[in-house]
Amino acid sequence: MRALAAKLEAATAAPGPAPARPRVVGALSAAVVDSNPYSRLMALQRMGIVKDYERIRGVTIAIVGVGGVGSVAAEMLTRCGVGRLLLFDYDTVELANMNRLFFTPDQAGMTKTAAAAKVGGGWGVAGWPRANPSHLLSPPQTLANINPDVAVEAYHMNVATVAGFDAFKAAICRARERAAAPTDAAPPPAPSRVDLILSCVDNYEARMTVNQVALELAQPWLESGVSEDAVSGHIQLLVPGATACFACVPPLVVASGIDERTLKREGVCAASLPTTMGVIAGLLVQAALKRVLSFGAVSGYLGYSSLTDFFPALDIKPNPGCLNPACVAAQAAHAAAAAAAPPPPPAAVEAAPEHEDNEWGIECTADDGGEGGGGGSGGGEGRPLPAGVEYSLPAAAAPAPAALAAATAAAAADAHGGAGVDDLMAQLQALGR
Amino acid sequence: MRALAAKLEAATAAPGPAPARPRVVGALSAAVVDSNPYSRLMALQRMGIVKDYERIRGVTIAIVGVGGVGSVAAEMLTRCGVGRLLLFDYDTVELANMNRLFFTPDQAGMTKTAAAAKVGGGWGVAGWPRANPSHLLSPPQTLANINPDVAVEAYHMNVATVAGFDAFKAAICRARERAAAPTDAAPPPAPSRVDLILSCVDNYEARMTVNQVALELAQPWLESGVSEDAVSGHIQLLVPGATACFACVPPLVVASGIDERTLKREGVCAASLPTTMGVIAGLLVQAALKRVLSFGAVSGYLGYSSLTDFFPALDIKPNPGCLNPACVAAQAAHAAAAAAAPPPPPAAVEAAPEHEDNEWGIECTADDGGEGGGGGSGGGEGRPLPAGVEYSLPAAAAPAPAALAAATAAAAADAHGGAGVDDLMAQLQALGR
Repeated sequence: MRALAAKLEAATAAPGPAPARPRVVGALSAAVVDSNPYSRLMALQRMGIVKDYERIRGVTIAIVGVGGVGSVAAEMLTRCGVGRLLLFDYDTVELANMNRLFFTPDQAGMTKTAAAAKVGGGWGVAGWPRANPSHLLSPPQTLANINPDVAVEAYHMNVATVAGFDAFKAAICRARERAAAPTDAAPPPAPSRVDLILSCVDNYEARMTVNQVALELAQPWLESGVSEDAVSGHIQLLVPGATACFACVPPLVVASGIDERTLKREGVCAASLPTTMGVIAGLLVQAALKRVLSFGAVSGYLGYSSLTDFFPALDIKPNPGCLNPACVAAQAAHAAAAAAAPPPPPAAVEAAPEHEDNEWGIECTADDGGEGGGGGSGGGEGRPLPAGVEYSLPAAAAPAPAALAAATAAAAADAHGGAGVDDLMAQLQALGR
Repeated sequence: MRALAAKLEAATAAPGPAPARPRVVGALSAAVVDSNPYSRLMALQRMGIVKDYERIRGVTIAIVGVGGVGSVAAEMLTRCGVGRLLLFDYDTVELANMNRLFFTPDQAGMTKTAAAAKVGGGWGVAGWPRANPSHLLSPPQTLANINPDVAVEAYHMNVATVAGFDAFKAAICRARERAAAPTDAAPPPAPSRVDLILSCVDNYEARMTVNQVALELAQPWLESGVSEDAVSGHIQLLVPGATACFACVPPLVVASGIDERTLKREGVCAASLPTTMGVIAGLLVQAALKRVLSFGAVSGYLGYSSLTDFFPALDIKPNPGCLNPACVAAQAAHAAAAAAAPPPPPAAVEAAPEHEDNEWGIECTADDGGEGGGGGSGGGEGRPLPAGVEYSLPAAAAPAPAALAAATAAAAADAHGGAGVDDLMAQLQALGR
């Protein structure tokens, strides 16, 4: 059997028939033919949804956690033709994961990153199959086999360790193109090469790690989560300085300083459903596409309660008393940039009719809601809150730059010791005045 | 190469190592071990979400249309361990489908039903792999390989033809257990063996076909759809007599009698996104699970507008003037059954505390909305409408049985000729009085 396998490997390594389809190098085809995997995506331009879909070829996205949500998010982005994907996970595939999408039973025991990213037997490293000796050989369900046009980097590691933090940050920062002649000299500090990080992890420690790296690199990211009873979930957009960071309004277990690992009980596992995780992955990647391709509005926070089909959407403003000094500094930088920027020009009024012909005589009348209601203006900031929800800070209390600078300095001074609650309350009251 | 393939086939046909896991026959294991593919599903019972998850082993679901939504819905139900799946589709897999989840490039040219359902090379027909000669051999991404515990029936056919209609209805009706000794005598009229039909098609003709079969069999079904610009979609629950049927409030193109095939233009295709289709598939299967496993509330209609993250939910009542006589008859039967049924007992008040311990002293206070607001009461009927939406019939105008019977008789008399609009308007006014 081993000899047969070796023979087979040799056979598949030999040059075979021409690939079914050439790899995409630059332009995506918009041709409406059955053999074009991008026809339905390029149609987004013709339909007026996306101005320039091909921009996606230049987009790099990192996914932390390749489980029930992350693996599906990776597959969606792969099928959309994203330029580059970075996958981070320390876990292996188990049969107990089979109730979620993507992984298959034959991958049990493989690392999740390898199972997702690696090219299967008989398939070329960077292209379409070289030789498929018989119909018996089928490529495994991996991102590289689904769309060889996407560059996938797999990092089998835990980001929530000291070494993992550094390696994660370095992977996010690595220069897009490696220098032709590497030297031993330390590389200069590189900015992030990643357009967006998607957090798809199942614990707060990893989320706090992503939060810290994002704050240090001024890196926008999207957080996601599914409840332990499997029937609700959420996504959240975090832009350093502009929105709340993950430490601004910490979850109770984080704020209480409880080690979440002590909460797990023997013989008890969280429930999960492919439906809830598929919906959250879909909402997450939809938000990512809206942001990187500039269409629609990205909610600051979007929840999903499946028992009642309730989808709360709201924005979460940054907390000037955030315990993370990098967040407070980012808030100051954001406020300074906003103050320096010229006021935006008034939005151009759409004078053209919505539809060329109107044989049914349909008329539009204004809603009572006026210009509110979450229309298609990008960014999601400034959306009116749903009924019954209030901002925790008064709307008029935009912090004065001087007060904010003082708060920033105070927080920075306390960076290693941690600011006392009383101090923070005093700062908060000063800002609220 | 051909000799090698034959050799390989012989090798894989030989009895190999024991299967990694026995097929489930009766009870699902709730054991919290990595090798149990049902541990995360059985945890739904421990979490108090589902009373008896194992009921899913007795559930049969038919999926019409195995495309961007239907294939993902089929995979979700397969991973959830549904008892039996019936798949209906007439199309073949193309590379132009690769921007949606599930199908892989190597399946191009296969029928969608075969690509989804069939067992791949080297894998047993009804169980786990018999012999996997090397790591090079990987099973294709099919439902049977993902979960061999699910019985999958593939019907490669178009339900929207005259012959297709009959074959579709017969497949839905076929007895669960075939008689040991088949005879030539015509089988007695069998009720539906299917718990739910999921419609995942892309045209109105097929939806009207599913609607007609559902009305004739008193078969509940869930309809789904994604817009041509790929950024919105919906699901809808249709229970003959209890909710609107698909003809009660027909789409404009159906009501106008336009042949939808004349609307397609050369060189233009609809856009599609794996995100929107994944969300719709997730919402669709979540609704199916809620209905067949009796948890949460199923919305009558749930929309998804991705540009603004807007999810309208509402119920659509049956139209007493529906042009489909089978619907009007179903409404009469439903009204008669409701009148004959004893009034439901008052709901038992949950006296037990929500949580055993409450060390944070969290208290629940009543919302202003009182008992409205789409709480977890099953069924979805009677939910208050969102702001700005009204029922098209006055709430007080529950049709009198006599008037309804008259309308039914009139509609039945017009079954073949089609009722005139004036007649229907007169009937409608009589009912509204």
